[in-house]
Amino acid sequence: MAKKQTAQPQNLPSEDEAKFVEDLADKDDFSAWYHDIVRKAELADDSPVRGCMVIRPYGYALWEAVQRGLDMRIKATGHENLYMPLFIPMSFFEREAEHVEGFAPELAVVTVGGNEKLTEPLAVRPTSEAIFGHFYAKWVQSYRDLPLLYNQWANVVRWEKRTRPFLRTSEFLWQEGHTAHRTEEDAEQETLKILHEVYADFVEKELAIPLLRGQKSDSERFAGALRTYCIEAMMGDGKALQAGTSHNLGQNFAKAFNIQFLDEDGQRKLVWTTSWGASSRLIGALIMTHGDQYGLRLPPKVAPIQVVVVPIWRKEAERVIVQEAVDSLLQELTAAGVRAKSDWREQTPGYKFNDWEMRGVPIRLEIGPKDIEKNQVIMARRDNRAKAGIARETVLSELNRTLEEIQQNLFNQALDFRKSRTYQAANFTELSEKFADREKLGFVETWWCGSADCEAEIKAKLQATIRCLPFEKSVKAKSGTCVYCGKPADKWAIFAKAY
Amino acid sequence: MAKKQTAQPQNLPSEDEAKFVEDLADKDDFSAWYHDIVRKAELADDSPVRGCMVIRPYGYALWEAVQRGLDMRIKATGHENLYMPLFIPMSFFEREAEHVEGFAPELAVVTVGGNEKLTEPLAVRPTSEAIFGHFYAKWVQSYRDLPLLYNQWANVVRWEKRTRPFLRTSEFLWQEGHTAHRTEEDAEQETLKILHEVYADFVEKELAIPLLRGQKSDSERFAGALRTYCIEAMMGDGKALQAGTSHNLGQNFAKAFNIQFLDEDGQRKLVWTTSWGASSRLIGALIMTHGDQYGLRLPPKVAPIQVVVVPIWRKEAERVIVQEAVDSLLQELTAAGVRAKSDWREQTPGYKFNDWEMRGVPIRLEIGPKDIEKNQVIMARRDNRAKAGIARETVLSELNRTLEEIQQNLFNQALDFRKSRTYQAANFTELSEKFADREKLGFVETWWCGSADCEAEIKAKLQATIRCLPFEKSVKAKSGTCVYCGKPADKWAIFAKAY
Repeated sequence: MAKKQTAQPQNLPSEDEAKFVEDLADKDDFSAWYHDIVRKAELADDSPVRGCMVIRPYGYALWEAVQRGLDMRIKATGHENLYMPLFIPMSFFEREAEHVEGFAPELAVVTVGGNEKLTEPLAVRPTSEAIFGHFYAKWVQSYRDLPLLYNQWANVVRWEKRTRPFLRTSEFLWQEGHTAHRTEEDAEQETLKILHEVYADFVEKELAIPLLRGQKSDSERFAGALRTYCIEAMMGDGKALQAGTSHNLGQNFAKAFNIQFLDEDGQRKLVWTTSWGASSRLIGALIMTHGDQYGLRLPPKVAPIQVVVVPIWRKEAERVIVQEAVDSLLQELTAAGVRAKSDWREQTPGYKFNDWEMRGVPIRLEIGPKDIEKNQVIMARRDNRAKAGIARETVLSELNRTLEEIQQNLFNQALDFRKSRTYQAANFTELSEKFADREKLGFVETWWCGSADCEAEIKAKLQATIRCLPFEKSVKAKSGTCVYCGKPADKWAIFAKAY
Repeated sequence: MAKKQTAQPQNLPSEDEAKFVEDLADKDDFSAWYHDIVRKAELADDSPVRGCMVIRPYGYALWEAVQRGLDMRIKATGHENLYMPLFIPMSFFEREAEHVEGFAPELAVVTVGGNEKLTEPLAVRPTSEAIFGHFYAKWVQSYRDLPLLYNQWANVVRWEKRTRPFLRTSEFLWQEGHTAHRTEEDAEQETLKILHEVYADFVEKELAIPLLRGQKSDSERFAGALRTYCIEAMMGDGKALQAGTSHNLGQNFAKAFNIQFLDEDGQRKLVWTTSWGASSRLIGALIMTHGDQYGLRLPPKVAPIQVVVVPIWRKEAERVIVQEAVDSLLQELTAAGVRAKSDWREQTPGYKFNDWEMRGVPIRLEIGPKDIEKNQVIMARRDNRAKAGIARETVLSELNRTLEEIQQNLFNQALDFRKSRTYQAANFTELSEKFADREKLGFVETWWCGSADCEAEIKAKLQATIRCLPFEKSVKAKSGTCVYCGKPADKWAIFAKAY
């Protein structure tokens, strides 16, 4: 980010430019390309603590956009924010059998506090169902207290063996919703409402990432849940990324924490609970869905900077008139609510073009003496890198129109890509073929009998998992034969390699 | 908060009402009164982990108001947010001698991760100077990279022996700013800018809490700082509360972490750093500054609910016309940007009045059939509990005017109270007298020679500490005699008992 607003002569040492223009790793080497973008766009940095990361200002601005978009929707659907403690007594986890089994291997544990050994070790929260359960038992007395519709924004820790910035880190940022309901139906409705109205709505409309919505198979469901619903997206390498999950927890946690209420009929009953979370890994999804060989490409709705203005000049006299034109343009854009900034750094225009392309700013404007003479500015789009002169008077309307177009175009490109990489397989041979070519990796739709054994065999042989049983099937038939065992199957499943 | 918007007959069991109306602890028993408000207004709840707390939705909404107000100002003064890891290697603390001495006794330490003993134990951050120092050394190369103006919103942990909700808890929420500068002067300017333009501006204008601004004595300064500046407020019991601090860290952390830059003159130099923080304890300050015998009193600018509308009816026919009037009023207020809600719970109007007074909602409106006939609503102010009918057409303008008046009135009342409890003392006998009467506790202004021994003796004998050396003295003289040793003294100091 430019720190100085005072202009300097543009006599950048050419080595600096050369160093930066040094290419990104080829996108075919997707993992190297991803790490390069994270580093060159200054989104995150590695931490001296294994598996943790620093989210740098530009990356954090993206997280703030995610927070705004989700928080607005979470509140609009009737939820309130609160904050639960970071530390959870180890004994709490043990109350729900599946839950402790799922999370115990990943816990970070505090054993010393204030120079003394603790009598009961404390887990740093990996998720907060247990502590919410404890308080819900205290807060819920009567049916009048229900539903409890709460959410928290928090950091959580899961001791991961292999980590990757934003995608899988030992500490990450997220929101976790936890609700308690009077009936099973209410809980199910909540679970689906969050999936559609909060997660999918935000991710598709603002992050411009097309999604599949569906249910997880039992082996992929949350530890302690009855049913897990999810949104799944296809990344630029054809792998799947789970972008958010919503769990119907049934009465599992109500039983474990004895969350009872006195119903209108005078009976004491257990509540029905849900939980749902989306995290900073959405930033990873953003990078891997839209990024290209020049760096990030950000959807205008969440771009911290929507428009960057790069001044072009050689002589001091030119600088003066260019500065005047840039200032007046910037004022107009900012007043109209466009997130715009000008770049008066010492570097050459070429360096700046590369830099802002790397950072994915949707539109770049260039203004030089010749443009001022012609009463125009040059507009360069990041999505398709098209460049054209536009009349100065029409800049604002052109920008607004183009920002909308870019938002839509990024979504459409991602959707087209997903379609081009979505296959069907009638049997295991076909399924294997689809996962054989790394260059053409994608989603494979097929019938599955519902057996965990078939699922496990496929995973062992192809490293592909069931991403979801989609709500919307792409076939009309109600059943077929299992892609693995060939027996009758009524589950239409999406298989993919996944992050 | 009301969860149901459907109206029910008002046949509340009278025991419920009786239970709630049960008085707050007398405000003279300030500590009991404080805990009662925290509990009855549902701001926070104790946690099963010693010294931690749950911030409940109403309390968290106050924290969100604090976040908004501070974040806006932090960004307006040129800072960007980022996020550093929760865990800090123990060895990092040891690099700055005063810093480790100050924080080591309060650390919570993770020794186990993923079922394995860690080779280097990790501290849960009590503050982040050390980890920022590590990264600043990496990010700063040239004078062109300076200043670095960063902030983070985070949870921190300090293992406290005695805790009190919001005021002192083992885990708390805060923002911590960390900046690095080219010159000593730049760092000093930053430290003071934050104190005045961010902290004092927000706390006085939005929280309506009058402040003293000044410098800490050496014994009260931050572990590792050159100078600490602070804002100090007087609570309802005459004790002081430190509401925010801003530290000029000099080159202490630059040396410890070797944060160097290549200056324009070709020399390698150490940077100058600052840090500054304000926390969820501001919610405690809000309660203890404005609360009264009926509960919280919230300044309109930060009140999650500014206006509550309580419908009054007996018969179903009345309910129908009242509901119509309430709905139309609420729509008008909400459209005008007033944070308003109606309360259709089953309880009696009397219960609701008490409930919303406890929660400190600035204005209550009552609408019943008679009011509708008279084309009026009843308006009750929380600050002075005045109640009057106002014509329906003028409601919006009256509300806006009154909200401003309440904001100002709360500030004025607190300022008057502080003035009435601010004393001067010429010698130790007078100083002792001022702290003898618990009913009249307050701030005592006096001369101090600057000796840490005098300061320590006073603290040992009176449990009073120097809150600050205020920027604005209330005396014209440039010196006097030390309140403790009687020697010449040029430091005008504010002594108080403190939270």
